Amino acid sequence: MQMPKPSANILARKAEIVACLRQVLPENAVIDDPFETKVYECDALSAYRCPPLAVVLPGSTEETAAALKACHEMGVPVVPRGSGTSLAGGALPTEDSVILGVARLNGVLEADYANRFITVQSGRTNLSVTGAVEQNGYFYAPDPSSQLACAIAGNIAMNSGGAHCLKYGVTTNNLLGVKMVTMAGEVIEIGGAHLDAAGYDLLGLICGSEGQLGVVTEATLRILAKPEGARPVLIGFDSNEVAGACVSDIIRAGVLPVAIEFMDRPVIRAAENFTHAGYPDVEALLIIEVEGSEAEIAEQLGKITKIAKRHNPVELRESQSPEESANIWKGRKAAFGAMGQINDYMCLDGTIPVSKLPETLRGITALSQKYGLDVGNVFHAGDGNMHPLILYNANKPGDLELCEAMGADILKLCVEVGGCLTGEHGVGVEKRELMHSQFGVDDLDIQMAVKDVFDPKWLLNPAKVFPLDASEGRRQ
Amino acid sequence: MQMPKPSANILARKAEIVACLRQVLPENAVIDDPFETKVYECDALSAYRCPPLAVVLPGSTEETAAALKACHEMGVPVVPRGSGTSLAGGALPTEDSVILGVARLNGVLEADYANRFITVQSGRTNLSVTGAVEQNGYFYAPDPSSQLACAIAGNIAMNSGGAHCLKYGVTTNNLLGVKMVTMAGEVIEIGGAHLDAAGYDLLGLICGSEGQLGVVTEATLRILAKPEGARPVLIGFDSNEVAGACVSDIIRAGVLPVAIEFMDRPVIRAAENFTHAGYPDVEALLIIEVEGSEAEIAEQLGKITKIAKRHNPVELRESQSPEESANIWKGRKAAFGAMGQINDYMCLDGTIPVSKLPETLRGITALSQKYGLDVGNVFHAGDGNMHPLILYNANKPGDLELCEAMGADILKLCVEVGGCLTGEHGVGVEKRELMHSQFGVDDLDIQMAVKDVFDPKWLLNPAKVFPLDASEGRRQ
Repeated sequence: MQMPKPSANILARKAEIVACLRQVLPENAVIDDPFETKVYECDALSAYRCPPLAVVLPGSTEETAAALKACHEMGVPVVPRGSGTSLAGGALPTEDSVILGVARLNGVLEADYANRFITVQSGRTNLSVTGAVEQNGYFYAPDPSSQLACAIAGNIAMNSGGAHCLKYGVTTNNLLGVKMVTMAGEVIEIGGAHLDAAGYDLLGLICGSEGQLGVVTEATLRILAKPEGARPVLIGFDSNEVAGACVSDIIRAGVLPVAIEFMDRPVIRAAENFTHAGYPDVEALLIIEVEGSEAEIAEQLGKITKIAKRHNPVELRESQSPEESANIWKGRKAAFGAMGQINDYMCLDGTIPVSKLPETLRGITALSQKYGLDVGNVFHAGDGNMHPLILYNANKPGDLELCEAMGADILKLCVEVGGCLTGEHGVGVEKRELMHSQFGVDDLDIQMAVKDVFDPKWLLNPAKVFPLDASEGRRQ
Repeated sequence: MQMPKPSANILARKAEIVACLRQVLPENAVIDDPFETKVYECDALSAYRCPPLAVVLPGSTEETAAALKACHEMGVPVVPRGSGTSLAGGALPTEDSVILGVARLNGVLEADYANRFITVQSGRTNLSVTGAVEQNGYFYAPDPSSQLACAIAGNIAMNSGGAHCLKYGVTTNNLLGVKMVTMAGEVIEIGGAHLDAAGYDLLGLICGSEGQLGVVTEATLRILAKPEGARPVLIGFDSNEVAGACVSDIIRAGVLPVAIEFMDRPVIRAAENFTHAGYPDVEALLIIEVEGSEAEIAEQLGKITKIAKRHNPVELRESQSPEESANIWKGRKAAFGAMGQINDYMCLDGTIPVSKLPETLRGITALSQKYGLDVGNVFHAGDGNMHPLILYNANKPGDLELCEAMGADILKLCVEVGGCLTGEHGVGVEKRELMHSQFGVDDLDIQMAVKDVFDPKWLLNPAKVFPLDASEGRRQ
């Protein structure tokens, strides 16, 4: 993958830049020892890595503003970083950039149950947001698979989703307000704990902007009352297409489960071998979870199984106990890790209209045959967010490139059937060049002009999201 | 209210401008006869009116683009208009502007039940969107009181809500994509019938931008399956504050009804006299509606009445039949009209955190005493969207100005308790100058810089949303 050439001028000024950062930040908030900055060389897209110029770890909004202002004045690019779990290279540094990590900003500022919100610092991990309110019967809905580690800052940057977002929406549907520092060091507040907002909706714009418009230091999030109960049902089919058609029919009937997860045979086998979840030996497996009171659960499961039976499932098993429910989810949640145990893989993230599931699965099979690489499918089927895993051999020369080419073709297929390049992982560096297949020149220009407003010098996470040729005249 | 001085140059060129519009549009799509343009002189904020230079009524996206391009080249401001139901003067023209009405764009382009969306032209009325899908068991959720008349274009411009938005969200939560024409006449597509989108979320930015960034000609909207049933309960209290506390407790308990509507004594009396809905003679009345299957309805109503009883209601009446339900809603829906029968009034639209309901109601009472004007309260209490009605006498000199000053103080109170200037009516001309009380200079600058991106010459609906002093250097 091509990266822009680092600025020789900045590399030559490294000592001066680090000294300047030390002047505005506490001693332990600036790291420039190459041994200590090593962990910041990559994120979860670990095929790519690059040592940063330095790393700063501010402990407050004020320190964040001081660091950004200093870099702005020195003309040094800044790459914001949450917990570094991006699968799209969103936190990948360049040699001439300073990593700004928000890990120290992890406090809870306010929990308000009457108005159903919590305000946290942005470095707090996703799961510990729920941790802060669950003793009062509340939870924070978006649940990326990496929720134990990933930071709210990164969730906001990538508009993260998760298995349970079919019912509750993704990050943008659960974010009420942010405190954000612009590249010039100005602190601005957008949105808040009230309905709607006068003027333009900048909050929606910030969410999903991949750290290119500002560094979010605080976030106000919607919290929800925990449902009384939840229960999954396992439904197995002897073909991917029939499973896809079943999902489409459930959505069409207006039933809205909390989650509809889909796994195909390679993934079912790997997950079963790894976790012994008790999955049946079928071509395609759906895990559908509903929640509410006992009466609501019974009613929704009744509708779902009635629709499923019209598609002749080879297995249909309602969970009979909390233990069985936990077991069913254990297999799904470990699916990525289980696949990683048996193979190198690249995890894609495209979205499609739900009705196009069968057609897209056929297209992926055809591409798999064309490229000679196996594919496992595990994804959030209810909202059409696909995660095909392309299996390859990292030690075989040329296999990664083959895998990348096939991945690009699968994402282009998603766009062709009316979908989108990314559902929840973001564009980052990974899908940057593919943006041409989704957007025309005018579309990209108008998006980049919005970045001009917030960051006229293009210093914040500059070589991401937009194709390098498109952003060339804007980047320094 | 102050309006910017019209451009003498444009007024002098009227004949030439109309001739040019006639060259690019069909004969019957351009209106300049002052008798025929009279109905376009105001919207539902009818205290203000102004004759426009001309009116164009394009019949397609292409004609919309042609009209905007022509005006752009001639430097003529354009005021987009849906059905003209804005309560904030969003469609109020200036003497030197061309009104662009989308009323002819009212077709249904696609209804897709498997993927739960409908694509309509933007001039279609809100209620007729549901009309197009209800025979298949679907509906479009946002339901402004003006839904019989108001256009989807205006709903998008103002991010409209409605009584049933507590559960289903407002327009921005139900909008999937738009086709939009920029002031320069470029046609762009934003969003679509898929989850999320790569790049920046311009859709959220467009929704609620009050027709200042482009003219939406087509919209793709989420449709939902109709619930099996719905049932309201009437709960009366002997004080506004106790009713407010009850709402706050219901939300806090995590129950999420479809609607929680609040009326105080002046409004209850007017509605009862007008519709004979059977409302009790109480200080404050809540209408709380839940929906779902019979089991779900019973369970939710059980929780709600249990909480309500802790607040000693003087009346608690579950609807016993569809006829009784219709009757209960008839009174609420006619409340604004009923108040209008007995008095001139100004309808405000602010939002507050739900927990601040009792405090805000106290503050409104104090302001009512200070100004000597009566206030009726009727609003969407569940999501904190207040609609105080200030009663005044339009024939009494000085009363309108007194009413406006009191309205400004009430909206400032909403901002002070952590809320916002507008929930669903928008800023328009009505609340333009109040934006200073919600936003700092930097906040307004960044919002206006976003308008610069889409409309560098500030020709589209220019003298709206932003305080005139703040936008002065940008407007022509």
